[in-house]
Amino acid sequence: MTGRIAAYLRAHAHRFARELAELVAFASVSSSPAAAPQLRRCANWLVRQLRQLGARDARLIATAGSPVVVARIGDDPRRPSVLIYGHYDVQPAEPVSAWRTPPFAPVVRGGYLHGRGASDAKGQLFAHLKAIEMLRALTGQLPVNVVFLIEGEEEIGSPHLPDLLGELAPYLASTAAVVSDNAVLALDRPSITYALRGDLYLDVEISGGFPELHSGNFGGAVHNALRVLVAALARLHRPTGAVALPGFSDRVVATAAPERAFMRSVGPSDRELGDEVGHRPLTASRAFSAYERSTIRPSIELVGVLGGYTGRGIRGVIPSRAEAKLDVRLVPDQRPDDVHRAIFDQLARAVPLGFELRTRERMRAAPVVLDRRHPVARAAQRAYRRGFSAEPVFVRAGGSIPIVSLLGEALRVPVVLMGFALPDDRAHGADERFSLAMLGKAVATSAAFLEEVAR
Amino acid sequence: MTGRIAAYLRAHAHRFARELAELVAFASVSSSPAAAPQLRRCANWLVRQLRQLGARDARLIATAGSPVVVARIGDDPRRPSVLIYGHYDVQPAEPVSAWRTPPFAPVVRGGYLHGRGASDAKGQLFAHLKAIEMLRALTGQLPVNVVFLIEGEEEIGSPHLPDLLGELAPYLASTAAVVSDNAVLALDRPSITYALRGDLYLDVEISGGFPELHSGNFGGAVHNALRVLVAALARLHRPTGAVALPGFSDRVVATAAPERAFMRSVGPSDRELGDEVGHRPLTASRAFSAYERSTIRPSIELVGVLGGYTGRGIRGVIPSRAEAKLDVRLVPDQRPDDVHRAIFDQLARAVPLGFELRTRERMRAAPVVLDRRHPVARAAQRAYRRGFSAEPVFVRAGGSIPIVSLLGEALRVPVVLMGFALPDDRAHGADERFSLAMLGKAVATSAAFLEEVAR
Repeated sequence: MTGRIAAYLRAHAHRFARELAELVAFASVSSSPAAAPQLRRCANWLVRQLRQLGARDARLIATAGSPVVVARIGDDPRRPSVLIYGHYDVQPAEPVSAWRTPPFAPVVRGGYLHGRGASDAKGQLFAHLKAIEMLRALTGQLPVNVVFLIEGEEEIGSPHLPDLLGELAPYLASTAAVVSDNAVLALDRPSITYALRGDLYLDVEISGGFPELHSGNFGGAVHNALRVLVAALARLHRPTGAVALPGFSDRVVATAAPERAFMRSVGPSDRELGDEVGHRPLTASRAFSAYERSTIRPSIELVGVLGGYTGRGIRGVIPSRAEAKLDVRLVPDQRPDDVHRAIFDQLARAVPLGFELRTRERMRAAPVVLDRRHPVARAAQRAYRRGFSAEPVFVRAGGSIPIVSLLGEALRVPVVLMGFALPDDRAHGADERFSLAMLGKAVATSAAFLEEVAR
Repeated sequence: MTGRIAAYLRAHAHRFARELAELVAFASVSSSPAAAPQLRRCANWLVRQLRQLGARDARLIATAGSPVVVARIGDDPRRPSVLIYGHYDVQPAEPVSAWRTPPFAPVVRGGYLHGRGASDAKGQLFAHLKAIEMLRALTGQLPVNVVFLIEGEEEIGSPHLPDLLGELAPYLASTAAVVSDNAVLALDRPSITYALRGDLYLDVEISGGFPELHSGNFGGAVHNALRVLVAALARLHRPTGAVALPGFSDRVVATAAPERAFMRSVGPSDRELGDEVGHRPLTASRAFSAYERSTIRPSIELVGVLGGYTGRGIRGVIPSRAEAKLDVRLVPDQRPDDVHRAIFDQLARAVPLGFELRTRERMRAAPVVLDRRHPVARAAQRAYRRGFSAEPVFVRAGGSIPIVSLLGEALRVPVVLMGFALPDDRAHGADERFSLAMLGKAVATSAAFLEEVAR
């Protein structure tokens, strides 16, 4: 960070905190229909900010849900264009009683701005806005063209974005896209997430349309839908916890030895990962470390099961239907359709005639890998180095950020994850917060990235 | 039924219905603390009825819960004594909106008295009271001594009865005990249930005290409590639905060939049982019919499973605890402690180090078999024949009625199940009802039984 940048951040720190508090004060809860006016007000606040930054065309695009904010600053065909994606909607704040201070009355406490959405992801988006403000103030111009795409439905699965991306593709065309909706390792340990697993989320149901029966009168004589479901689900894993589904890993692209060596050098050891998960027992594998199992290997987790009587005390029933939820994490080059079919077939082998097995796909996201030697990844690396005065670590994550694969596929653009949250920001939880020290580093890093991309 | 008895029943039919309506009008819901005054009023109503029948010592015995009504009519040591067990408490009536007429404002409609508890079991108890009234009116005396034991906590598991039975054993001493708390096959198909399975109801829990984890970030790397529970439960059964627990059937007393031939001759065929359960698929067995599997063979039913996220939409979690309920039905000579231990051990084999498996016994009842050639069973057979003008069928039931084994063990008395409910009386449901035609047959049958026991 240069002295001029540090001085600018210092000089404007109070205003930055005040403006971010304005943004966080909108109760832009996308899952609540009653919050529609707040979502619109929040989107308009962003349009005003973007216009002040020179985006004269900043505007709302209506959807069947919350509006999308788009804006473009600069239109020089000789310069690269950077797409900055963000979202202005937030998770619900319930239970509000769990918060020390009201979720939509942001306050600074201990160097953090507290409020719902402060970290996920208003603070991270705000850093990009202030980076552009700073670059314009210090240099009079931007090194790249910038396009903003800020949606208001990320927390409910971006239902209207895919169609819109098709329509907006020419407007959004760019050299690189930045998504800032995740965490770095620590305030002094910046990191770049260069790989995400894909996701296939399935609801499973076994039913027969029979009446529920008394487990005394008929126990032993008839099939039990819940027992059938349990028998079916038990076929998906080995006792070690490893997936037992035939063909599940057949198409998985093997990770090259140097890449695995790199992962070993920067990633957590089994012991470190064990500490991180509160000493929950790890699954067993001789071939892959726990970090590898949760990043470069696919997984099937049984997320939920509900069936029969689960209340207090005793009731003797033989359930006639039962349901489960499976969260499948995919890696290249698994095909979601094939995996879905293989799971269905494996479950179906345990289902007796007369019962119906149904699976329903609730979510699908493709896996994402950005080669860490890609120029855009290198630019992000140099930017973090400058903004944090520390070397960023390239890490893989086991989770999925659907927008990343969506942007990459719809716009055919390399997407770099430049997270500015901290692991203890309590995203989705009570007392969510965003570090103001992080805000300064994020502004510097974002500005540095725009410069590095232009090199 | 003799002409005198038929005439008496005809002459008093309206009064019987009116008096039964009085009894059903008490909202004696034992699970509701607020219903305590109603329970007491109901018990006092019974005491008054019993005094009118000549039981001068009829009285309430206080317990920590609802009072127990006891009464004795006749004390002739040369005569047999018959213990009549009943209960005056009822199931909750919620949701009241599901009832055509209010549950505690009994009305006669279509030959049935409608109201909560009409069938389970106030109507059945009332039949015994009116049988004694009729015998005294027609013959001036009773052929046996009668002792009443009427509790007010049957629907909540008779928590205070076992201790009380110990204290009252001398007072309750008798030659035979009658429990009328179950159904016959139909109004023209009387039946005597001579065997019940025992019950062992277990809550099962797998937990580790770990934090819940994100199924994206850690899926594949750590053990999942819900998957562990499913793997454990899957070890209890074969794909046929048969119990796979080692040693589970070792101590089961083989049923002799003539008894099995008798069961075949009177019990439902697989096809008939299949019809009865709405064509739900039957478990597979070459050795035992479905009727046998649900009566003379033990069973383990998975009654409920709850774990992880089971709400709408998607949430990706790796559960850290999960629970299940198992309903185990026992036959002679299985030992509940051994069975409980074998289940625990079988489940435990699937539980990795670091997780804790807990089982908790929620209910235990011993199996009951009354030899159908026992003099008391024969007396009941002759009584049904006289009261219904039809030959009763001796049937086995797969369910458990804890009071039957409790009475048999505590008082060392043969217990005969003389049910007067009908399968479509909607016990525990909305619009519960009791057939007034059944009431007449039940009064006649009860009176005949007291005479037949005295032979």
